[in-house]
Amino acid sequence: MTVKLGLVGTGTVGGGCIDILKNHREDFKRHYGIDVELVRVCSRNPEQAIAHGVEDIFTQDYQDILNDPDIDIVVELIGGTTVARDIVVGALKAGKNVVTANKALMATYGEEVMGAADEAGKEIAFEASVGGGIPIIDPMKHSLIANEISSVMGIVNGTTNYMLTRMVEDGLSYDAALKEAQEKGFAEADPTADVDGFDAAAKIAILASIAFNSRVTIDDVHTEGIRNVTTMDLDAARDMGYCVKLLALAHRTDEGVDVRVHPTMLPLSHQLATVDGVYNAIYVTGDAVGETMFFGEGAGAGPAASAVMGDVVEVARHVTLGVGPLVGCTCTDELPIVPMDDLKTKYYIRFKVADRSGVLAAMAGVFAKHNVSVYSVVQRGKKESGQVDLVYVTHTAREKSVRDVLAEIAELDDVLRDEPSVIRVEE
Amino acid sequence: MTVKLGLVGTGTVGGGCIDILKNHREDFKRHYGIDVELVRVCSRNPEQAIAHGVEDIFTQDYQDILNDPDIDIVVELIGGTTVARDIVVGALKAGKNVVTANKALMATYGEEVMGAADEAGKEIAFEASVGGGIPIIDPMKHSLIANEISSVMGIVNGTTNYMLTRMVEDGLSYDAALKEAQEKGFAEADPTADVDGFDAAAKIAILASIAFNSRVTIDDVHTEGIRNVTTMDLDAARDMGYCVKLLALAHRTDEGVDVRVHPTMLPLSHQLATVDGVYNAIYVTGDAVGETMFFGEGAGAGPAASAVMGDVVEVARHVTLGVGPLVGCTCTDELPIVPMDDLKTKYYIRFKVADRSGVLAAMAGVFAKHNVSVYSVVQRGKKESGQVDLVYVTHTAREKSVRDVLAEIAELDDVLRDEPSVIRVEE
Repeated sequence: MTVKLGLVGTGTVGGGCIDILKNHREDFKRHYGIDVELVRVCSRNPEQAIAHGVEDIFTQDYQDILNDPDIDIVVELIGGTTVARDIVVGALKAGKNVVTANKALMATYGEEVMGAADEAGKEIAFEASVGGGIPIIDPMKHSLIANEISSVMGIVNGTTNYMLTRMVEDGLSYDAALKEAQEKGFAEADPTADVDGFDAAAKIAILASIAFNSRVTIDDVHTEGIRNVTTMDLDAARDMGYCVKLLALAHRTDEGVDVRVHPTMLPLSHQLATVDGVYNAIYVTGDAVGETMFFGEGAGAGPAASAVMGDVVEVARHVTLGVGPLVGCTCTDELPIVPMDDLKTKYYIRFKVADRSGVLAAMAGVFAKHNVSVYSVVQRGKKESGQVDLVYVTHTAREKSVRDVLAEIAELDDVLRDEPSVIRVEE
Repeated sequence: MTVKLGLVGTGTVGGGCIDILKNHREDFKRHYGIDVELVRVCSRNPEQAIAHGVEDIFTQDYQDILNDPDIDIVVELIGGTTVARDIVVGALKAGKNVVTANKALMATYGEEVMGAADEAGKEIAFEASVGGGIPIIDPMKHSLIANEISSVMGIVNGTTNYMLTRMVEDGLSYDAALKEAQEKGFAEADPTADVDGFDAAAKIAILASIAFNSRVTIDDVHTEGIRNVTTMDLDAARDMGYCVKLLALAHRTDEGVDVRVHPTMLPLSHQLATVDGVYNAIYVTGDAVGETMFFGEGAGAGPAASAVMGDVVEVARHVTLGVGPLVGCTCTDELPIVPMDDLKTKYYIRFKVADRSGVLAAMAGVFAKHNVSVYSVVQRGKKESGQVDLVYVTHTAREKSVRDVLAEIAELDDVLRDEPSVIRVEE
């Protein structure tokens, strides 16, 4: 039999999918007995369809795909949470299987989408929503299923990892690194979703939901980006044997799910510390498997299309064999989200202060008052300006106490009004 | 329904499986609606059964498991290719699904085992046969299926990786590193399978078969171990910006499948170069996904049991849903194995020679005669003994030509009779 595919979205990833099917349709038949045919392509952009040679099956109305009774699988690659939501939920309700790369949709409306799939008895597959081409959702749903997962930590945004790598390698400022990333096509003209951590937040919400069998949405994720990270922070980190990565972290704790995205100091000996440039990696710890890591290209036409078409061939296999969905929603538990105030970790904090006697003593008093124990304090930067940078590293402390310290220190006379750099430390 | 499990083998991994089922049986039910019950355990060793609290379902005769009509899945964890072959093929013929961690069996009798599964319409799963707890077989059979895989390179033997790491870190000799590995339980009393590369050869045969859709057996793998690697070689490598790993490599070439295991020099910047100690990692390159790597613990009770029980829960899911095997044998092509003589790569070669004039010129003549172009030659070691070490690095050359060079140089007057160190270089 031939499994019929409808594709919505002909951008970079959609184009990659068309190419894979052109190159490998015969291979899928020969190796796996799976025949996938692209029968309809929808896009707002006829030029893209022509460029990919699919003008004969082109439409500008996605309803043409949802209403086509011959189509078995709908691939949604337009992104966003408005039209994409209508397409994905509509396709499932129309009795079609769906493959999507849409992290925002799954991290925001995951419950609705999984529910619609469950009700229709159809599949929703979304491997490409996290980590580009890196297999991570499928291994967590299958190979690692015998584990209780205790944590998932990932470098899941290539744009910010590229920028941080360039800031370390060549001492580029944040602005220069962003400009270079934009010139190379690694960052959007509006870089907000990447540099402010929202892209990573959607991805860790998806991974945490699977890892902990409990629904986590993007709104549950405490999210900080890399705008305040300076080369001085990166240098200070390196001097202490650490690197700084924008990490997406999800931990299972006695109090519930601790899930966040923020710049994080990691020991240089950690396997994630070696992941540079636009590469992504996800580090999963389970009670049986121990520590395991999945590494690869997190974006781009090829990698993302690899994940999308992997899902397509797998769903097509099930359609061919007459098998329904094997794994539906697995969020059977309702774990609470740990409030950020209750987080306990170590902190790197850099203040800019006037170079006058007494300031150190005043600050020490504030740390002590809030029971935040200081592991080290080092002065960095030039004195000529009359200002110096003071770099504190704390012992394990409660987030709320550190926030109180920061608020109180901000009111001290000789502390400058700049936002201090705060980077949490993961050992 | 309850899916019934029979376990053969109660060693380290078998014990780990019993523990996982004890700890997580209720979780599997709650999260996935899968109920797995261990109903029979076979071992030659009653004490192990008692230690794991399974004496009430214990037998010393595996036929009790094969003949039990209630058992859905047989787990084979005794290893080897004699009794294990009878159990695995026998269980499939008796209409049972089989999960095994047996790399030697799958790399030697894979075709027979896959054929028996196919004939019986039952599943054979073997994730634990490669890379311990690292998900690699399942991702290659599912998530990466849309790719044409061009190469698989792995550090798949923890014993030798531990030894090489210790030789680099602390300058231990091969013998001292082996002794330490044995004391820590990382190496067997008879270390042959590990240090001579046979364990890695079985694993790369399995991975190559899946990656290239063409049967590769352990006998197809050119295999060299690490017995001849010295700290001098490791130092020389580091000075040139390389590390030395026992790599298992499989490349798809125009001439067929190039598959081998040998000590390999890798640039320090390569992601595999950061994989130290007992950790394993498998690096897969595909035409869409680009470069991807799977990292984790390659051995031990927990990791191996994670992979075995992942397979068990997956097969139990299919049994519960009334679904037959989804992926059978995928070796639909018959690619030739590239003869080792035709390999083209770069070579590091270290000779021990008498410290006399003329020897360098004589050797240069031999290289030139066989058209092996030399990139660099460096003298290492102390002169006092009247001997020196000459380290050659070649440009890309044909294996046969290099072998001819080695044979002819061995006959030169001032070249000592020790086996030269030959390490192939992967860029």
